[in-house]
Amino acid sequence: MEESKKKKKEELEWRRKTWKLVSKVRMESPLIQCITNFVSMDLMANTLLSAGASPAMVHSLEEISEFTPRVSALCLNVGTLSSSSLPAMIAAAKLCSQLNIPWVLDPVAVSASSFRFDACVQLVTFKPTVIRGNASEIISLSSSSLQSSAASMGVDSTHGSMDAVEAAKLLAQTSGAIVAVSGATDIVTDGNQVVGAHNGVPLMQKITATGCAVTALIAAFVAVDKSHALDAAVSALAVLGVAGELGMKMAKGPTSLRMHLIDSLYGLDEATLQSHVNITSLC
Amino acid sequence: MEESKKKKKEELEWRRKTWKLVSKVRMESPLIQCITNFVSMDLMANTLLSAGASPAMVHSLEEISEFTPRVSALCLNVGTLSSSSLPAMIAAAKLCSQLNIPWVLDPVAVSASSFRFDACVQLVTFKPTVIRGNASEIISLSSSSLQSSAASMGVDSTHGSMDAVEAAKLLAQTSGAIVAVSGATDIVTDGNQVVGAHNGVPLMQKITATGCAVTALIAAFVAVDKSHALDAAVSALAVLGVAGELGMKMAKGPTSLRMHLIDSLYGLDEATLQSHVNITSLC
Amino acid sequence: MEESKKKKKEELEWRRKTWKLVSKVRMESPLIQCITNFVSMDLMANTLLSAGASPAMVHSLEEISEFTPRVSALCLNVGTLSSSSLPAMIAAAKLCSQLNIPWVLDPVAVSASSFRFDACVQLVTFKPTVIRGNASEIISLSSSSLQSSAASMGVDSTHGSMDAVEAAKLLAQTSGAIVAVSGATDIVTDGNQVVGAHNGVPLMQKITATGCAVTALIAAFVAVDKSHALDAAVSALAVLGVAGELGMKMAKGPTSLRMHLIDSLYGLDEATLQSHVNITSLC
Repeated sequence: MEESKKKKKEELEWRRKTWKLVSKVRMESPLIQCITNFVSMDLMANTLLSAGASPAMVHSLEEISEFTPRVSALCLNVGTLSSSSLPAMIAAAKLCSQLNIPWVLDPVAVSASSFRFDACVQLVTFKPTVIRGNASEIISLSSSSLQSSAASMGVDSTHGSMDAVEAAKLLAQTSGAIVAVSGATDIVTDGNQVVGAHNGVPLMQKITATGCAVTALIAAFVAVDKSHALDAAVSALAVLGVAGELGMKMAKGPTSLRMHLIDSLYGLDEATLQSHVNITSLC
Repeated sequence: MEESKKKKKEELEWRRKTWKLVSKVRMESPLIQCITNFVSMDLMANTLLSAGASPAMVHSLEEISEFTPRVSALCLNVGTLSSSSLPAMIAAAKLCSQLNIPWVLDPVAVSASSFRFDACVQLVTFKPTVIRGNASEIISLSSSSLQSSAASMGVDSTHGSMDAVEAAKLLAQTSGAIVAVSGATDIVTDGNQVVGAHNGVPLMQKITATGCAVTALIAAFVAVDKSHALDAAVSALAVLGVAGELGMKMAKGPTSLRMHLIDSLYGLDEATLQSHVNITSLC
Repeated sequence: MEESKKKKKEELEWRRKTWKLVSKVRMESPLIQCITNFVSMDLMANTLLSAGASPAMVHSLEEISEFTPRVSALCLNVGTLSSSSLPAMIAAAKLCSQLNIPWVLDPVAVSASSFRFDACVQLVTFKPTVIRGNASEIISLSSSSLQSSAASMGVDSTHGSMDAVEAAKLLAQTSGAIVAVSGATDIVTDGNQVVGAHNGVPLMQKITATGCAVTALIAAFVAVDKSHALDAAVSALAVLGVAGELGMKMAKGPTSLRMHLIDSLYGLDEATLQSHVNITSLC
């Protein structure tokens, strides 16, 4: 009895927190710098705009030293990493770390190559506030050997998010970052506490760059509440999931879902959000 | 009485001109080279195709000398400028200037860095036919000091378009370009005359790259009437605004607006266009 | 009588083959590496996902040697070719050729410059499994002189696909590739046999990157049946055409067509596909 009451209270608390963060992003319109892959730029920018944030796809090394100090948060995504984009990522991550600007890392297909794996490992040393990936990516990154990640070559996960809980906790402990694992249930951990967001629909996996988009949304949420990065990450995951659930009601396939999802994110009101958000403590 | 009659006549004149340009683009299908940012490529190409133009995202320095001389107009956009893309922009702008091919500059987030600011200032020396930006960008670019632009870091404007009238006139006078300022009212000036296009809907600002798309549309319009660049610029701004108004009737959020806007641009007929175009002389 | 019966039987055969390939892609989810232009990345990835394949936009030279050997097929597209992207393309093509991994070349706007023309000619030496272009591109590429291709500068075709039959056969014979020419009727040849796919709708040409998307789809189909590349290429062209026909029923313009097309590709069932596929032998 007491247990279920406590649980109920906690869930209500998450709903309130999530709405508060949605409102805060809309009000403050944080400037989010994204150095990201070429596939996701459009969806990422539109997701941020729909959430009320201000995206800036400034990715040139020449601009980092002047521009990055002014942003509210940074989002790095290695989806189409190259030797020419990596130095800008490193410079921006380093600067954020020095200036205490929150930043989020999306280690897309981290085990595609040792070049990419090494780059991600290096980026983690600059203390990302949050790391978000799918299960395969988090499992790969949490190990320091390339061997263990041989199963996952592409960007699509071959593991369920629950398989990655221990890897996520380990990565959180060693890196100091909040670690988020997308999946049927999205898992977020600080290395100790584990929280699950149970929103979203499976068809979202058939839209390219939804993972990238939610990482950008995490950056926007962290930007307005940087001292509670775990809450911000869980909330952002739940919010995009809710937008997906709402969008799904009107969708006839992945591309109409993509449209209705972003429309829904833009139009999200307090009552609808709170009746859909489903966040629980897992351990 | 006379004044209002004259005004009425002028507005009718603008409607006729605008439709004439829409028809001409559809008939001549001008080849528009775009060297643009990675976020906007998709929307820009689709906007040009829907308007009847032929987009070509040829951006490699190796191709400029052979390709650029054959295009009808060039569109340069510094949204994701880098040291590797700048030389191609300079080469293309220089060539257009020499060959009297109209070209349009979009100084996205010009004050994001001194690298970007200096690049834009340099590009302006190659005599763009039209410069289009939001109020913050035009105000920044019209000043030659970085200081005055400190207010605007990202791509979203922090000024209204009317605030930028004097800056736009100054920039037009010093550069020799037609200067267009997007906003609630789009302002276009040759440094002397100021014309306003009052079309569009606020939600267009929540779609990434609509500004870039309208700059590309200006390039297409200028391509088919290069001796009347001011008319072409105003008309293009009005046409995309009208497409936005038509799209808004069916839209449920920013991404469905984006879809309906492009669909509407494609299907625009004379009667609908003329009943919506709202262009007036401002001074 | 006999002739028409034979023809009928052949067409039924094509329908069965096409559905078999659709099913196989969905079941095996082949990993398709795309090194492609920046305009098409989003549509290409979404097309592959909707078809059930797993796209990977891995394009960095540093990653080719480790990543490419693990893919099921490779898709190269020169739409925004540059001196920095060409080496990765060459390395990947070479590796696929050595390892007998099927790969597909899309020579977008091949005659835009001698840089691009030479690059395509070089890539062809690495034995693509399939080359797909529009009529102008295939005519240009099949000739070895730049002169003959002066008519086509941009990405849009100025020739009909039937004009290109002889050029396609010649290119197939000299290169050893299956050659596909998109158009009102899509033509596919191995240098001897010529097959036509009569699906699709004209409005698809007003959506940027549909050509690129179908090339990626060909890669996915070839990946699951690499010993029958002609069948795979024809089937992929027919399938995207059918998706376009289905999408057209709901579309109000090019951007809604794009959405409904991808949704339709995702939802395609056996009965609908077989009642729409229209493939015939041409000679």
